[in-house]
Amino acid sequence: MTASEHTEIREFVLQRLQHGVASELRDLIHRLHPADLAQVLESIPPEQRRMIWFEVAESDMGEILAKVSDGVRENLISHMESNTLVRAIQTLDIDDIAELVPDLSSQIIADVMVAVDEDRREGLGAVLSYEEETAGRLMNVDTVIVRETISVGVVMRYLRLRGELPQQTDKFYVVDREGVLRGSVLLRNLVTSDLNQRISAIMDENPQTFLPSDSEEDVAASFERYDLTSAPVIDENGRLIGRITIDDVVDVIQDSASRTLLAPAGLDDEEDIFAPVFQTARKRAIWLGVNLVTAVLASWVIGQFEEAIEKLVALAVLMPIIASMGGNAGTQTLTNVIRGLGVGTISIANAKDVLKKELLVGGLNGLVWALVVAFVSILWYDNYGLAAIVAIAMLVNICVSSISGVVLPVLLDRIGIDPSLAAGVALTTITDVVGFLAILGFAALVLV
Amino acid sequence: MTASEHTEIREFVLQRLQHGVASELRDLIHRLHPADLAQVLESIPPEQRRMIWFEVAESDMGEILAKVSDGVRENLISHMESNTLVRAIQTLDIDDIAELVPDLSSQIIADVMVAVDEDRREGLGAVLSYEEETAGRLMNVDTVIVRETISVGVVMRYLRLRGELPQQTDKFYVVDREGVLRGSVLLRNLVTSDLNQRISAIMDENPQTFLPSDSEEDVAASFERYDLTSAPVIDENGRLIGRITIDDVVDVIQDSASRTLLAPAGLDDEEDIFAPVFQTARKRAIWLGVNLVTAVLASWVIGQFEEAIEKLVALAVLMPIIASMGGNAGTQTLTNVIRGLGVGTISIANAKDVLKKELLVGGLNGLVWALVVAFVSILWYDNYGLAAIVAIAMLVNICVSSISGVVLPVLLDRIGIDPSLAAGVALTTITDVVGFLAILGFAALVLV
Repeated sequence: MTASEHTEIREFVLQRLQHGVASELRDLIHRLHPADLAQVLESIPPEQRRMIWFEVAESDMGEILAKVSDGVRENLISHMESNTLVRAIQTLDIDDIAELVPDLSSQIIADVMVAVDEDRREGLGAVLSYEEETAGRLMNVDTVIVRETISVGVVMRYLRLRGELPQQTDKFYVVDREGVLRGSVLLRNLVTSDLNQRISAIMDENPQTFLPSDSEEDVAASFERYDLTSAPVIDENGRLIGRITIDDVVDVIQDSASRTLLAPAGLDDEEDIFAPVFQTARKRAIWLGVNLVTAVLASWVIGQFEEAIEKLVALAVLMPIIASMGGNAGTQTLTNVIRGLGVGTISIANAKDVLKKELLVGGLNGLVWALVVAFVSILWYDNYGLAAIVAIAMLVNICVSSISGVVLPVLLDRIGIDPSLAAGVALTTITDVVGFLAILGFAALVLV
Repeated sequence: MTASEHTEIREFVLQRLQHGVASELRDLIHRLHPADLAQVLESIPPEQRRMIWFEVAESDMGEILAKVSDGVRENLISHMESNTLVRAIQTLDIDDIAELVPDLSSQIIADVMVAVDEDRREGLGAVLSYEEETAGRLMNVDTVIVRETISVGVVMRYLRLRGELPQQTDKFYVVDREGVLRGSVLLRNLVTSDLNQRISAIMDENPQTFLPSDSEEDVAASFERYDLTSAPVIDENGRLIGRITIDDVVDVIQDSASRTLLAPAGLDDEEDIFAPVFQTARKRAIWLGVNLVTAVLASWVIGQFEEAIEKLVALAVLMPIIASMGGNAGTQTLTNVIRGLGVGTISIANAKDVLKKELLVGGLNGLVWALVVAFVSILWYDNYGLAAIVAIAMLVNICVSSISGVVLPVLLDRIGIDPSLAAGVALTTITDVVGFLAILGFAALVLV
């Protein structure tokens, strides 16, 4: 379903809901794929959402809960009886259940543990024993295991006896008697191999493996880099404990992209876009408060030069240009570096080379725009001294902002703080303060 | 390989290169996976990059060229003889060749077309006939086809005769005599089915399909939503013409995430981080120029109130706070809306609901921060009239910025302009102009 089809469905749903849930709408709800329903629910206000949710088939509820954002999930769960909720959840894959767990009450978690069958209970317990955002939490325990000494033909017969394979099964894992991973066999290699061949002859003896403690970001980067579709998770003794599949990795990639986009504005990627106004306002207020402190700091700098401004009010007119251009140049560098840190092309090892290049770029652009604003000031105020000060302040601020744009995120990354979260605010504070200080300070020294 | 291992390799490479390429380094280069080499090349300066590139095995070059960003690829190609380049490229999958084509000279393209074997030449021609960033360009033509009337056992025998299956093969496609797609059969279902069963009994008759003209963003959204690992591409008559695999979709998702992150700062996600300084500076200058125009516009607004500022210089001190808080509140709304438009939870259909909510959030936060800055101004200047004006200006600017944060991106999206590209600049222009106008205008009317 394309984006515009989704828009159509949304429009249709919102329109029809004005007259309550009629049969036409009910039919649509039952016909839609759970993933599409998840998106519809995500994108309509809470009242309408509740009306739709009551019409959703219980068998679709688990998958929908697994697909929606944390905020919407919380909202949907608040409308559910606990036994319905348990029934909806228990049908899911255990990696999906594990993902829901942080949003569930301990009572519901206990009920789900009782409701799932014994095999899955053990697997669920294992997955839940790892921290969030790790490979262990991302994995599923539904691995299909074969021995290396048996023949392809035997495996084929076993598969026909076994019946259905788990979702996203593209390879089998070869383990020894102790459960230690010896290799993996691609299903597509198995079916083209001679029936008499031994598994050991067609297995990949060096599959990319993960430890349960590996971060999900590292897992995602490896999947991307090596074009993996699934990969085994092993414990520190090399024993196979689960596998990670590409569908979950795609979610990690998408979540991480959302976070990088939203974090600089102090936003949470798991928030319901229709969360209660008061709740959203409170969450956003924190970030606005931090920004107010930095804005007041910049204003305080201006306040130190009231006398200069009184004598030459043109300074007040021109100073925002200096601050803003510094902020923009610095943001360009910063964004580039944050992205480089994210995709792994920038690290402390080559930060010096990056700094050198960015400073040269900043210096060059600083010169160009210093001349342009000097020209503008002359046109505007016909004051060559003022023009010279504006130009110098511009050059200084763009150079400082280029340096900060590299140093800030690399340092934050080094000390373990997500640079996309804090570097932007820090950078604009620096460019505002340095920008105001440069133009007003030079003017106070020389001009007035 | 984890991020920190990559950093180590990079450090090692950069250090060793200071003494030229010695055997130790040569060994490392030959041992690394092409994808890891691609990342090393991406993250070192051009001179060192050239030294490494000359040591890379010719058989790895194609895959590396397919993995690096456009900018780095251009740089690497510039060091290659054309016959080496043709040999490196001709080994790639045709969807990968298609991706390189925009960066190749027409002579090289012609040579590659001659060098690939006849089957692939036809497929490559077909793929290249579609526009960039479409499903047609993303697809590969290496589909494995079966007939619905034959039995599972026959297919299994055919597969063993055929030998090796294409990379990422997880399903076969069922077509009729005219080549029209009838369904698909998962490999994992095939191997667990009874040998006497007919393909028609185990095939999925309604697989998610794509048209070659579908945008790659729509394809990626569907893969994510329905957890697909591969999907058929059909022409308007329903004939199977290729398939799209998850590895290429992951690249689309990653590219689109990079674009959303970089576009607001006027940056290009395919640029070499070590591109020549002059080239980078020129590219960035355009965006800085646009920003200068908007900054000058805001300054011009301030310039209209020089008299008021001269009389009450506190206005010059406090006005950046109003502009900055409006900009921040607006950016929060804007970022949320751009993300919602991207993931599909916001569209013109529910924009009114989103606007209502964002305006309420903005109003609430506007009130809170209006009171806070009023308090700050009283502490600072002990001027109740000024405090009242600052508070009103703050409330007005935050409300206007909340409205703009919804309306701007939705409108831009509606008229087909990527909102992440232009909405940010437009928003800060509005919040600067409105912020300055509000505080200085009210002051001019009432206070001075």
